[in-house]
Amino acid sequence: MISTVNPNLDDIPQISKEMKLIENELMRVIEEGDESIRGILKDFFAGGKRLRPKLVLLSGLCFSPVNTKMIYSAVAAELIHTASLIHDDVIDRSDYRRNRPTINYVYGNHTAVLAGDYIFAKAFEVLCRQNLNRCMGYLVEAIQEMCTGEIIQARESPDLTVDEDRYFRTIEKKTASLIAACCKSGADCGKADEVQIEKMGLFGLYLGYAFQIVDDILDITGDTSEMGKPVAHDLEEGKITLPYIYFLRDRVWEAKYRYTLMERNLATDMKYQIIRDLKHSGAITKAYAKAEECVKKAKEILNELPDSIYKQILADLSEKVMLRKR
Amino acid sequence: MISTVNPNLDDIPQISKEMKLIENELMRVIEEGDESIRGILKDFFAGGKRLRPKLVLLSGLCFSPVNTKMIYSAVAAELIHTASLIHDDVIDRSDYRRNRPTINYVYGNHTAVLAGDYIFAKAFEVLCRQNLNRCMGYLVEAIQEMCTGEIIQARESPDLTVDEDRYFRTIEKKTASLIAACCKSGADCGKADEVQIEKMGLFGLYLGYAFQIVDDILDITGDTSEMGKPVAHDLEEGKITLPYIYFLRDRVWEAKYRYTLMERNLATDMKYQIIRDLKHSGAITKAYAKAEECVKKAKEILNELPDSIYKQILADLSEKVMLRKR
Repeated sequence: MISTVNPNLDDIPQISKEMKLIENELMRVIEEGDESIRGILKDFFAGGKRLRPKLVLLSGLCFSPVNTKMIYSAVAAELIHTASLIHDDVIDRSDYRRNRPTINYVYGNHTAVLAGDYIFAKAFEVLCRQNLNRCMGYLVEAIQEMCTGEIIQARESPDLTVDEDRYFRTIEKKTASLIAACCKSGADCGKADEVQIEKMGLFGLYLGYAFQIVDDILDITGDTSEMGKPVAHDLEEGKITLPYIYFLRDRVWEAKYRYTLMERNLATDMKYQIIRDLKHSGAITKAYAKAEECVKKAKEILNELPDSIYKQILADLSEKVMLRKR
Repeated sequence: MISTVNPNLDDIPQISKEMKLIENELMRVIEEGDESIRGILKDFFAGGKRLRPKLVLLSGLCFSPVNTKMIYSAVAAELIHTASLIHDDVIDRSDYRRNRPTINYVYGNHTAVLAGDYIFAKAFEVLCRQNLNRCMGYLVEAIQEMCTGEIIQARESPDLTVDEDRYFRTIEKKTASLIAACCKSGADCGKADEVQIEKMGLFGLYLGYAFQIVDDILDITGDTSEMGKPVAHDLEEGKITLPYIYFLRDRVWEAKYRYTLMERNLATDMKYQIIRDLKHSGAITKAYAKAEECVKKAKEILNELPDSIYKQILADLSEKVMLRKR
């Protein structure tokens, strides 16, 4: 199922016209706001990969030619994603995202919380104006999952009982549920039947798993300049992600680090030592293999759907997730 | 138009059955969530005056017998209001609300931001499930107004050019727009015609003005135990509210305080001195008179709507806003 139609995750020529429509509409929505909020937001919306709008659109195009509903669902999905990023930056006290200063860093938490709320409201306004009630249903459920997932994760103290299952439950809520909702929304706008919509959702779920696993790997292997954020952020936060789970499965490393990994405020030297040992342990390779497994599963689900060029692009896009550098 | 049907703003016997329904539904919505989030929220939802659900309900009952749409619109309005309070507490770094510790104080900003987002999503889920698209339209617009209003207010440095007009524009966005949206939602659910819906919205707007003016007065005249928050919070934040605007209209006080009022981190002694002088200046009386004017205007608008017991209750409720202690 490998093809060369999509050389770059950022640019998919077969849907460039539709993506331009989505982009214009997204900008129009932001322009609607008061001048004070426009300036804050425009900058933040620049530079995204627009993965979620692409997924809405492609999932829709698998079942029908482009329609207005797909365009607006895609716009709403990007608005929701962006609102959650703005709030995540407040929560994580991040100063940078995509090598650009965050809203909380420049304007303070006050403005960042409100700007996020504003964008959430905008998303629902778009969905409501277009009577996209079913899409709204998928998306509000995903937002609730995202919030619940993050609250649960934060309230759990780091402990070594985090296993693969719990990790997957967490990333499902945190990341995969919104990606699944995007795919379901698209399919719904494309008038897919209930079974097809559910399958598309399942595809999104596995793609979301792979996406988050790679993200968690990049937190360890990426350097600051590539990630646009400090390396081993998860380690600092005491988040036991998949590479750490695999690392601790090795009895030697478990003996050495089981208590250290539960600490916060690790010294930089200790942080680098852990990362070095983790890289030597083979845990990264195992985590990549798991992500690969998820991509495979995602593509198998696609196989059960009608053939189309857009299905092929979705399959390629799943592959590209593995090659992602940030 | 004064009557004795409503001895207490908190308890309106004529709608107690409907309010119970709303309360149950509100609790059911909260119970739906994961155990981790339920515990956090239940406490926060207790103890509210439920002004907004009452307004939705009463505005609806002015035009038709109770229906499911009114109940769910009322639930959504309270959810939106609560979500915005949770975020306001993060923004204002408040430790207490209604004499209870805030979510940010107990669980941290992290959980409070997410809990607010979760509640916003729940509100839209309720509206979406009940196909209340028109109500959603009113409410999302109000949320945007609220966010924009607060961002504008925060970005303006305190200066003495704040006049009555600008104050009203700010409180319209911050408070009155949501109250107006509640009244419009109720009327809409009661199948009022467009003109009636707009009038109900205008009633809400004036009621909202009065409500916020009284709130701003209580920030100065209330003591900590009554308000559940520190006194003269606005002064500390450099917010020039209506009593301060009237205070500075007096040339003597303007000469004495024009620069002091622009400062942040005022010494406690200076704060108490300003408040003492402001109370002597007659500015509080003038602000109350202005709120009274708004209530009068609100009741005039009601006069243009069909007579009913519920219209009378709305008129009484407007009066009660003036007597509010917190």
